[in-house]
Amino acid sequence: MKLYDSKMAPNPRRTRIFLAEKGISVPTEQVDMMAKEHFTPEYTAINPLQRMPALVLDDGLVITESIAICRYFEALQPEPPLFGVGAEEIALVEMWQRRAENNFFAPVAAVFRHLHPAMKELEVPQVPAWAEANRPRVIWFLEFIDRELANREFIAGDRFSMADITMLAATDFMKLARIQIPAGATNVKRWHAAVSARPSAKA
Amino acid sequence: MKLYDSKMAPNPRRTRIFLAEKGISVPTEQVDMMAKEHFTPEYTAINPLQRMPALVLDDGLVITESIAICRYFEALQPEPPLFGVGAEEIALVEMWQRRAENNFFAPVAAVFRHLHPAMKELEVPQVPAWAEANRPRVIWFLEFIDRELANREFIAGDRFSMADITMLAATDFMKLARIQIPAGATNVKRWHAAVSARPSAKA
Repeated sequence: MKLYDSKMAPNPRRTRIFLAEKGISVPTEQVDMMAKEHFTPEYTAINPLQRMPALVLDDGLVITESIAICRYFEALQPEPPLFGVGAEEIALVEMWQRRAENNFFAPVAAVFRHLHPAMKELEVPQVPAWAEANRPRVIWFLEFIDRELANREFIAGDRFSMADITMLAATDFMKLARIQIPAGATNVKRWHAAVSARPSAKA
Repeated sequence: MKLYDSKMAPNPRRTRIFLAEKGISVPTEQVDMMAKEHFTPEYTAINPLQRMPALVLDDGLVITESIAICRYFEALQPEPPLFGVGAEEIALVEMWQRRAENNFFAPVAAVFRHLHPAMKELEVPQVPAWAEANRPRVIWFLEFIDRELANREFIAGDRFSMADITMLAATDFMKLARIQIPAGATNVKRWHAAVSARPSAKA
């Protein structure tokens, strides 16, 4: 199999962190998104949506979407569990993964993609008003999650999960969007330091 | 347990269709989003994100996010499987569910939420330029999925899945966004007629 990966982008990073937590190693090929390599006919043949990452299996089957690739490996190798075990934990991990993705990762991405000069040719059209509408949502979510983290170690409970991976990738993505963690969000800062210290964060 | 449901909205509909396919019946309470009942202190205590639906279990645990609620019931009652069986199908259902959600459901919602006069007080601020940026993405995805459906019966393969539920809810949501299925998308129309004829579509 081969994983098409992009070092700089937050979605491929989610898959890399997941694989590192599992201790799984996959041959990779870098696709340079700033050089628009994901728009080439070769990569478009692999993923018509021209998004990263993509996993090509030995039988030729293509799996795209970072979370779908993670679920593939979770099914092949359940330990350590990163999508929960049992109905309640499975639901909570999915709930927090989606809350983090839709209410935090997506707004951070909107601020970056619709304001940053480097995205002018990649996000067409850029809509600066949409970026500005999303900026306060980023802060709102961090203050919400700060209250939640007063009572537990990780985003979805007492165990590191896919929800932490999404939150970590999005939190570090804030640097490109030029947004900072609110000074008073001490629980977020404690959580961020802890997950950043895991070896997987360097993946 | 109790399911907080909103009859008109596409996300709660995803959960209702899923439960109907499973043959599971859950006591429900209607929350009128057009009357802003999801913004009341009572509902905000259940879901601080003020989104629908929400499932409250007998032990008080709250599960929000339509897909997380569906995964809870999939874990409790695996048959019929709607999130796939085995690593490859699990990955393909997640891939197509996410492709449909991020590249079709979300753009349809953006067109509706940022243009429709009824959303003026619910989507603040409305950004009409963001709606217009999303309109061509809706058509692009339908033409893409039309080519995919030339070779198979359902969105993620030969079996009805969560990906069909997301696609169906989003396709019917197009009416509120005032967008029509392209005339030439005959495979989409065949698929839409088939899934709309299932009893679950009326849920």
